[in-house]
Amino acid sequence: MKALNKLTNKNNEGKFVCVGLDTDIEKIPRHLLHEENPVVEFNKQIIESTIDHAAAYKINFAFYEKDGEVGLKNLAKTLELIPSDILTIADAKRGDIGNTSQMYAKEVFDYYKFDSITINPYMGEDSAAPFISYKEKLIFILALTSNKGASDFEKLKFEDGTYLFQKVIDKSLEWNVNNNCGLVFGATQLDELKENILRTSNMPLLIPGVGAQGGRFEDIVALINTIPNKNYIINISRGIIYKSSEKDFATKAREEIINYNNISEIVLNNKKNM
Amino acid sequence: MKALNKLTNKNNEGKFVCVGLDTDIEKIPRHLLHEENPVVEFNKQIIESTIDHAAAYKINFAFYEKDGEVGLKNLAKTLELIPSDILTIADAKRGDIGNTSQMYAKEVFDYYKFDSITINPYMGEDSAAPFISYKEKLIFILALTSNKGASDFEKLKFEDGTYLFQKVIDKSLEWNVNNNCGLVFGATQLDELKENILRTSNMPLLIPGVGAQGGRFEDIVALINTIPNKNYIINISRGIIYKSSEKDFATKAREEIINYNNISEIVLNNKKNM
Repeated sequence: MKALNKLTNKNNEGKFVCVGLDTDIEKIPRHLLHEENPVVEFNKQIIESTIDHAAAYKINFAFYEKDGEVGLKNLAKTLELIPSDILTIADAKRGDIGNTSQMYAKEVFDYYKFDSITINPYMGEDSAAPFISYKEKLIFILALTSNKGASDFEKLKFEDGTYLFQKVIDKSLEWNVNNNCGLVFGATQLDELKENILRTSNMPLLIPGVGAQGGRFEDIVALINTIPNKNYIINISRGIIYKSSEKDFATKAREEIINYNNISEIVLNNKKNM
Repeated sequence: MKALNKLTNKNNEGKFVCVGLDTDIEKIPRHLLHEENPVVEFNKQIIESTIDHAAAYKINFAFYEKDGEVGLKNLAKTLELIPSDILTIADAKRGDIGNTSQMYAKEVFDYYKFDSITINPYMGEDSAAPFISYKEKLIFILALTSNKGASDFEKLKFEDGTYLFQKVIDKSLEWNVNNNCGLVFGATQLDELKENILRTSNMPLLIPGVGAQGGRFEDIVALINTIPNKNYIINISRGIIYKSSEKDFATKAREEIINYNNISEIVLNNKKNM
């Protein structure tokens, strides 16, 4: 199934939460350390308990790569646990000259078979093109990120009056000839999202930064639902997977994602009733 | 030994060439395919034949990651073949929010024990800080890259009159409190390098883009030697490692790097004699 269709299907079911598997062995419940593979066991229980309610799963490469080959084996095993109708996102923030981006695309799409990837636009079109050439995949391009450092460059204004992150949005629209580009827009940047939501046109949004980073879920849902037919997912990592550090971590994760879905429903119903 | 000292030592010996190990099994000489591990055998022969003449080795992560765990095993084995007095660069172009960049830094510095890394500045200071906090390491920050797409964002001018890549240089100088930051500046951007060489101040330069990408080695050497005490390396990947696709590939690689070192010497002597 085409990556975009996976996202659209889940959005149509009222699911907007992407579960971020930023799994860190130092943060998972202690009882799991007796398991043969604590990281994969943790991910397995999180996936099983949230699968009916999740719109997507995002695997943060850094948390696996830090353990070298063993970490990447865990990444591959985790990926196998995710049903094929749910969007999988390689949160890898890659980008390099063309022949190198091509190799990263091979890694993420051909070797691991992810549905989508996050990429860094700094190096421009030819660094993005090898990813975008995979027509069935979804390429989330960093526009405005959720962190403090977003002010250093992304929020600076060019002499033509557009900010760097707006220029990235505009270029991404140009590059989107295969209708497979999306944007990363931080939940902490609510004012900017309000002002630029129409600028993002038909491109799906991946919105991180809710919870630990300070963005509010309900604000994002309410905002995006002011425009028609927008596909989006709000990523929550620590706020779901580490909701409890005890034996009930999977149950608590499930309760938390259900809670978020209920918020979506209330916000959407309020809108309909207005 | 501190990463910066490794670079300085080699520069003092008149060595400025970084050998880029962008090793692709589809491009290595056919006779190596009978070896137990063709990629590592290729790298071993390239390293052995160039070691007396190289200033550094740069490992392009994408070319190893594309083969998953096996590729990363090859990366680790390759790294073991490089003597400890020579700078090793993880060409990984990483960068993410703080807690994620921290994991990438653990991967590259704690797990693989590279001396240095290339990072992408798009997300700003807190995405760079976890790398820079490793005081003994060297952090090469992308300023102006060698590819065509550099024009899309890097070469756009902000309303205060500075270009994005200049803003990155200025910020990098601010971030350089540990005296361990360097810059990536494409060899294909000779005019911009001329105009900005003083702006880069005391920061070491990693200069890719010679050979296959079109930059001229002698132009770079001549330019940088117009300023005092600058540490720099010019990366050459395909131009050295694929100089021959026959059994003599290692000999040809050695001849080519010696050739580049001779060019450096001639350029530097010309300068002295002027």
